[in-house]
Amino acid sequence: MMRTDSSRRAGESPNSASLWDTPMDIRQYLKEKKMLVDGWLSDCLPAPEQYSEKLFEAMRYSLLAGGKRLRPILMLATAELFSDGQDPLLKNFACAIECIHTYSLIHDDLPAMDDDDLRRGRPTCHIQFSEDIAILAGDALLTLAFELMSRPLSSERAPLQIRALNEIATRAGCLGMVGGQTADVISENGAGEEELVNFIHTRKTAALISAPIIAGAILAGATDRELRGMSEFGRRIGLAFQIIDDLLEIHSDAATLGKSVDSDLRNEKITYPGVFGEDKARSVAHKEVGEAFSYLGPYGDRASALAGIARFFLDRVN
Amino acid sequence: MMRTDSSRRAGESPNSASLWDTPMDIRQYLKEKKMLVDGWLSDCLPAPEQYSEKLFEAMRYSLLAGGKRLRPILMLATAELFSDGQDPLLKNFACAIECIHTYSLIHDDLPAMDDDDLRRGRPTCHIQFSEDIAILAGDALLTLAFELMSRPLSSERAPLQIRALNEIATRAGCLGMVGGQTADVISENGAGEEELVNFIHTRKTAALISAPIIAGAILAGATDRELRGMSEFGRRIGLAFQIIDDLLEIHSDAATLGKSVDSDLRNEKITYPGVFGEDKARSVAHKEVGEAFSYLGPYGDRASALAGIARFFLDRVN
Repeated sequence: MMRTDSSRRAGESPNSASLWDTPMDIRQYLKEKKMLVDGWLSDCLPAPEQYSEKLFEAMRYSLLAGGKRLRPILMLATAELFSDGQDPLLKNFACAIECIHTYSLIHDDLPAMDDDDLRRGRPTCHIQFSEDIAILAGDALLTLAFELMSRPLSSERAPLQIRALNEIATRAGCLGMVGGQTADVISENGAGEEELVNFIHTRKTAALISAPIIAGAILAGATDRELRGMSEFGRRIGLAFQIIDDLLEIHSDAATLGKSVDSDLRNEKITYPGVFGEDKARSVAHKEVGEAFSYLGPYGDRASALAGIARFFLDRVN
Repeated sequence: MMRTDSSRRAGESPNSASLWDTPMDIRQYLKEKKMLVDGWLSDCLPAPEQYSEKLFEAMRYSLLAGGKRLRPILMLATAELFSDGQDPLLKNFACAIECIHTYSLIHDDLPAMDDDDLRRGRPTCHIQFSEDIAILAGDALLTLAFELMSRPLSSERAPLQIRALNEIATRAGCLGMVGGQTADVISENGAGEEELVNFIHTRKTAALISAPIIAGAILAGATDRELRGMSEFGRRIGLAFQIIDDLLEIHSDAATLGKSVDSDLRNEKITYPGVFGEDKARSVAHKEVGEAFSYLGPYGDRASALAGIARFFLDRVN
């Protein structure tokens, strides 16, 4: 179930070596946190209104389609690193980051974008409903994310709350995820070069992996120095995660992956395996995770959940 | 230039009568504030990045297309009612509300929605660029709005900042603007009834007219009682504004209006004139503005800018 070999990876610093071998049952951890987050997500949607019921139905359909909840779980695991993780703000922030992730999937799947029919084993939002409802459901989920994060709790927490919200907004916007997605759709059929593939995936994927990590750390009271380390940790596991996704896409069929596997190939997307070849891409993913782990070194065993999550996703292609 | 007759309108309370006759030069006021806001908007967009330049180009194209800047101006005028209006947060909030308005126009114009080719006298975003870039530019402007509103300024202001941001998010989302737009697209070709037309326009238009008013009042330190009054003022002038837009659409050509005039008719949208007839619609607009004015009564002459703005837009169809 767990990886137990202790071979050293490139870029891994000595004091983080034990993170590869933590005795933590990460599958159980992921399962428990996913159940917690799924319950929160089910509660976070407002009650439908009479004339716009279909909007709420589409939001619910996509939000509760059974994702891995990786981003909320990363937020919770990071908050646990710096505090007891019992902050009532975490619930709304965890739901918010999943709303943003879900909106990005709905809009990416649209006919004018990747034109995908299948997502998480079910028809995509615009297939199940219609294109206009899918656009609006995405817009509504993005807006709901910010409504959730800005629910007033206490004056004392407001400064951290606004700062965490700002970090998420920055990473989700034109300098983050939306910018990466733009470069991705523009560059289709273009030359695949190293700088471009890094530009795209640092923004499109890694920005929204590091966002919940940074937000979780801010809410839990991390120092600026700690935040810089966690940001770098997030960026590196985010890149590794994207590379792994690209590799999985090559080797899976739709039934396994739950989405249309030929989408990237059909759209001639620039991918890491496409630019570097499969072997090099796999070793880059290992290297990024190894370097990411060096930022967890100072926390020792307390970081075993975060390390376990990173390793779990890396192991999917080993 | 200004309306000077003092005939009493239905629903207007005695102590607000003078607001119809304020000596303020509202055209000059609107012109000065628009120049101020246009300058802020030009500065609020991040510098373009190499591989995603087109996104920034599309955001700039639509945001700086020369709107009336009604929503930011309403925010500034409301803040001036409760303070000296010199709050540094106002600049970011004013830009944010215009970013949200602009994103909603870009997405509303998409082929899957209203399918409009012309907006503010120029090709719509998806015509000028492409459909995918238009979707992403809308997403990026919505996200930028929340990034702007959440820029940390001072710990002391953070509680009001988070509260104002939350009010805007609520009014822009599934229970506000996006919900109204959903009912609007669903109800096309449906029966036009009074309850539905009110549902749509309370959310689609009035929610985003009252949002900057509420946010401006919160940031300026208004009490809860004052906020309730300003919310009602905003809702009523928002409805009036939508009715006036519907009436203008019937009587204008594209050159005057700067957008495709037959869009609502072509899409068989439910409008106030369509449900009530033109005369009744016009009298409802007058009534709403008259009742809105009753909420400004307590402020006397200090409310003349807000009253002047409301009257200015009403006068467009007189």
